[in-house]
Amino acid sequence: MIKAGIIGSTGYAGAELAGLLLGHPEAEVVWYGSRSYTGQEYTSIYRNMFRMLDAKCLDDNLEELADEADVIFTATPQGFCASVMSDRILEKARVVDLSADFRIKDVKIYEKWYGLEHKSPQYIEKAVYGLCEINREEIKRTRLVANPGCYTTCSILTLYPLVKEGVVELSSIIIDAKSGTSGAGRGAKVPNLFCEVNENIKAYGIGNHRHTPEIEEQLGLACGENVILNFTPHLIPMNRGILATAYAFLKRPFSYEEIKGIYEKYYGEELFIRLLPEGVYPETRWTEGSNFVDINFKIDERTGRIIAIGALDNLVKGAAGQAIQNMNLMFGLPEVLGLERVPLFP
Amino acid sequence: MIKAGIIGSTGYAGAELAGLLLGHPEAEVVWYGSRSYTGQEYTSIYRNMFRMLDAKCLDDNLEELADEADVIFTATPQGFCASVMSDRILEKARVVDLSADFRIKDVKIYEKWYGLEHKSPQYIEKAVYGLCEINREEIKRTRLVANPGCYTTCSILTLYPLVKEGVVELSSIIIDAKSGTSGAGRGAKVPNLFCEVNENIKAYGIGNHRHTPEIEEQLGLACGENVILNFTPHLIPMNRGILATAYAFLKRPFSYEEIKGIYEKYYGEELFIRLLPEGVYPETRWTEGSNFVDINFKIDERTGRIIAIGALDNLVKGAAGQAIQNMNLMFGLPEVLGLERVPLFP
Amino acid sequence: MIKAGIIGSTGYAGAELAGLLLGHPEAEVVWYGSRSYTGQEYTSIYRNMFRMLDAKCLDDNLEELADEADVIFTATPQGFCASVMSDRILEKARVVDLSADFRIKDVKIYEKWYGLEHKSPQYIEKAVYGLCEINREEIKRTRLVANPGCYTTCSILTLYPLVKEGVVELSSIIIDAKSGTSGAGRGAKVPNLFCEVNENIKAYGIGNHRHTPEIEEQLGLACGENVILNFTPHLIPMNRGILATAYAFLKRPFSYEEIKGIYEKYYGEELFIRLLPEGVYPETRWTEGSNFVDINFKIDERTGRIIAIGALDNLVKGAAGQAIQNMNLMFGLPEVLGLERVPLFP
Amino acid sequence: MIKAGIIGSTGYAGAELAGLLLGHPEAEVVWYGSRSYTGQEYTSIYRNMFRMLDAKCLDDNLEELADEADVIFTATPQGFCASVMSDRILEKARVVDLSADFRIKDVKIYEKWYGLEHKSPQYIEKAVYGLCEINREEIKRTRLVANPGCYTTCSILTLYPLVKEGVVELSSIIIDAKSGTSGAGRGAKVPNLFCEVNENIKAYGIGNHRHTPEIEEQLGLACGENVILNFTPHLIPMNRGILATAYAFLKRPFSYEEIKGIYEKYYGEELFIRLLPEGVYPETRWTEGSNFVDINFKIDERTGRIIAIGALDNLVKGAAGQAIQNMNLMFGLPEVLGLERVPLFP
Repeated sequence: MIKAGIIGSTGYAGAELAGLLLGHPEAEVVWYGSRSYTGQEYTSIYRNMFRMLDAKCLDDNLEELADEADVIFTATPQGFCASVMSDRILEKARVVDLSADFRIKDVKIYEKWYGLEHKSPQYIEKAVYGLCEINREEIKRTRLVANPGCYTTCSILTLYPLVKEGVVELSSIIIDAKSGTSGAGRGAKVPNLFCEVNENIKAYGIGNHRHTPEIEEQLGLACGENVILNFTPHLIPMNRGILATAYAFLKRPFSYEEIKGIYEKYYGEELFIRLLPEGVYPETRWTEGSNFVDINFKIDERTGRIIAIGALDNLVKGAAGQAIQNMNLMFGLPEVLGLERVPLFP
Repeated sequence: MIKAGIIGSTGYAGAELAGLLLGHPEAEVVWYGSRSYTGQEYTSIYRNMFRMLDAKCLDDNLEELADEADVIFTATPQGFCASVMSDRILEKARVVDLSADFRIKDVKIYEKWYGLEHKSPQYIEKAVYGLCEINREEIKRTRLVANPGCYTTCSILTLYPLVKEGVVELSSIIIDAKSGTSGAGRGAKVPNLFCEVNENIKAYGIGNHRHTPEIEEQLGLACGENVILNFTPHLIPMNRGILATAYAFLKRPFSYEEIKGIYEKYYGEELFIRLLPEGVYPETRWTEGSNFVDINFKIDERTGRIIAIGALDNLVKGAAGQAIQNMNLMFGLPEVLGLERVPLFP
Repeated sequence: MIKAGIIGSTGYAGAELAGLLLGHPEAEVVWYGSRSYTGQEYTSIYRNMFRMLDAKCLDDNLEELADEADVIFTATPQGFCASVMSDRILEKARVVDLSADFRIKDVKIYEKWYGLEHKSPQYIEKAVYGLCEINREEIKRTRLVANPGCYTTCSILTLYPLVKEGVVELSSIIIDAKSGTSGAGRGAKVPNLFCEVNENIKAYGIGNHRHTPEIEEQLGLACGENVILNFTPHLIPMNRGILATAYAFLKRPFSYEEIKGIYEKYYGEELFIRLLPEGVYPETRWTEGSNFVDINFKIDERTGRIIAIGALDNLVKGAAGQAIQNMNLMFGLPEVLGLERVPLFP
Repeated sequence: MIKAGIIGSTGYAGAELAGLLLGHPEAEVVWYGSRSYTGQEYTSIYRNMFRMLDAKCLDDNLEELADEADVIFTATPQGFCASVMSDRILEKARVVDLSADFRIKDVKIYEKWYGLEHKSPQYIEKAVYGLCEINREEIKRTRLVANPGCYTTCSILTLYPLVKEGVVELSSIIIDAKSGTSGAGRGAKVPNLFCEVNENIKAYGIGNHRHTPEIEEQLGLACGENVILNFTPHLIPMNRGILATAYAFLKRPFSYEEIKGIYEKYYGEELFIRLLPEGVYPETRWTEGSNFVDINFKIDERTGRIIAIGALDNLVKGAAGQAIQNMNLMFGLPEVLGLERVPLFP
């Protein structure tokens, strides 16, 4: 039985981790870390798990936790994980960091977009970017996974085969993304109040959202070129789900079958990526609660563009589910273990 | 492996059954019945289960299905199950009827409230009312379960210990219930359109909702007296969940501990009923996607009333989950099998 | 032109006042008070009114404001208005207080339910309870109106004719109320975040909600007897709207026409109360954005109860609209002035 | 007093017209046409207007209506208005057609995208495209207005100054639009049920939505060149509102002030277009219920693109409000008459 600790267990992503690990046959949580609720019953905060577990929230002492856990999940604000990371921790435990601290290989870009000094850049190189479908083998061998962001997982997986195979004009890529509100976290802020989000849609972080360089870097690694693109997130009045609508010019006319073949080449065997039938497009509802990413595309012959669309649950494949998929890989377990949930609809 | 057939598998309750049975280790679906979609791929209608199952919708021939299945779930409109029930079917298969056809023991009351002639009243006596927490032993021995309605499950379980133990004035009982919209089914009707339900709350079926006599009959059986009460359902702009707020005069002043003890007596060992801590009241979100019923109460000394509140997911404990709980009981399986889902929040 | 000041103008009720006064032909706002946003452009906070007004938020100095305004609206936390009220203010300006400070005549009850010491009980007697349909003449003559709460307006108006005419058993009254989330205010609190409210319903303030004594006192004044009842509010995932479902035993069997006649007697001429046709029940959506209260009832012969239902927009008839209706009365204007909005649907 | 008739008065756009005209000081509705509800009380269908008007639904006989009305609004399915249009009707009454029948000047494009034969192409040339801010003078002189679609109004107004002034690469334009569900109409269809729309976002009409050629034609007229672009609509779980996020390469680096100046040049004096302050972006909530379009832009120096964003209420500026704005222009009335509503928030 793998012993797991969660730092930041009372945020939405942390709680999703807790819930998923409850149903995981080979792992158990030994540490529910929460700076805000230390000492309180975990299920007094997340009553959905009432009677399913019995534990008090602990603090966020990673050094101490490393003595007790085989794997540590950090679902913490940017900068925290980098500020406490140490060789000792990594020797004792594997770490899956759900923050952005070790996602971006170029530390200058990290510091610029996040406005933070990186406290332990020496671990960036060691960290593997935890997009399982792309870096599976590296993940198996690492002790530190940088779990991708929710927008980025959806955006990268939607575009990866197209970029990798060089079928689209890189400079023409635009990603217009839409997210449910759980992505904004559980902090008490006026803009996230029910009455402010409900019956509304807005764009935010236009031209400067922090997930932009992460997407650019990963797509750049895929094609070996510099990628600069527009990424615009929007806030949607729903709890869960991300939809990414991506646009790009095709370098030449491609047939449906050609592009389909390219997606099949990369994702045909993937358990959590569902390539939808022709003419059927992703909707977030079909993925809710599950680790699936649904993907499809449309070639617009009029404009010469491909529109590729991806959908996932931001708390599962976009955060906690992917983190567990990474854990499974790191510990040599079947990748789907604990992640077999049927999407909940309606 | 239990072979299961679902008649009405493309309604919301039927699809919930399909989803839950996908995760059930001892059962598999051999027949996805759907009069509306016969011949179509099941997952072209419920894309959440895309790639998780591969089957075409079949018709609603119960006789034929009984040859192939060990258990038949009928999630069909009122009157259908009664109109096709036969000795032959019940000899070959066990049946869990999610409609109201066999719930009400007094056929005259059924015919009056439902405005239908009952086509097979001879099976009413054989049918066991499938509220597992109350009729567990009878369910184990029957071949025909009348699976309770969603409002009724919530209302009866909330009030049962109080009525059974005779602590409330029967004539003072009022149940004010609120339901998510999936309870209205998947039929294409103007009142259930998004724009009609969203940003609205309304009462309906005031004084004549069909779940009223079912609640009255079951509570009457509990106390051996005639129960007549007010039950008022309301439609809420959310997908899932029922909250029942029940009011009654206490026959004499009771302490919190006395009433708590009564609830503990009946539900203390129940796996799917969670009696909440003092001062914490049920909310539908904490049960979403699960088979839990959350219950608590408040004694109002000013008025001499008890307010008892219950919450559940109408598609799970209020329909498909309870049906599987009944199946588990009928086949001698652990009651929780396939029903271990952690409630999904947010 | 009436000069109006709003203290607490950046809460939801305050902003509704601002919006309604923008469309009022005989009034203009000269003071947008806001302790939180003093010095900021009002429309930088409420961008719906961008370019419709041009003013900076001022502080909450009532003495100073009284020199500039003919009428002051206080949409402030409990206790504030009582703590600053003075003869000087009331000599210079009329006041409509949207808080509870002067609603309850029995100061001991106020202090007990609100847990506050009342700082100026000497004004309680002078204040008129501003339920226009009931206290119209007194309102015309007063300089201090205690504007009723949202739940209370809906509850009292729904039950008033029945209680006044003595047709119901007072001890049997139960009010089960449901409210949109704007009633919870614009404070940044975790329980009011989108993801906490959405896809959920809960009861709160069970047995101890502060609107209870206000309803009891007013209904008691109507019938000349002591009224003690149960009032249970519920939080609904929608922005606006209150639905009150009220239950009581009829003292004897009444016909539909008898009860209808009683409602007509009190409300037949009222501009803002709409008695719906037989069999049609209030829904909050039909009142959204307007000052209407929709009311209807059902006699349940089986149980001997009447179920009376009312619906309104909590920010309009339940707060700002009623405040303006009161202002119109106090200044001798037509009661509907500035309140002619057609309810917005969908 | 202008006498108005509404054909299709029981759809959402028709009802918005009815509501707005109730508050219009110079117009009154003399004919509520509704094929589905002929003979029924109008307010039995739209109870928000109960007691505000008293009329039965009439049929959709335009010839007869033209004898009684000064202006006719047709909020009807595609093809209807073209199939009944006649010289006689246009001689007797002015017509504002909310359908697409006379919007597209190139009848072949209309027939191709709508899959309909156009029954009266002779009126296309006479019809003026009713985007008031662009075609104001022509509208004043015409008897037949083709009222723009909701997506198109938002998309065109957002991009018009940029295209007109030639600052963007035409081939690079992408419009990613998001709409509330009232845009889908009041027809009883499964995909528009509450449980299907709620907690979901999806793209639809990818590459072939019918508003595409309308946007292309109008932007093409603005710049005198052929415009081919991508337009992708998305369905959002909210009642009202459209947000259009438009992307294009700037032909050269522009400063914020330059682009701001261009917008000011075209819209600086417009009553219903609000250019937001720098750094503040449109959100649909700030326009709800009003005739406003909110617009702003961001120059992304990294990519060389401009991101221009517009928001409006699809039922008001996107349909009924614009129709009344057109009526005001046609009848020489102040453009804002009957359209002064303050946006309703929350």
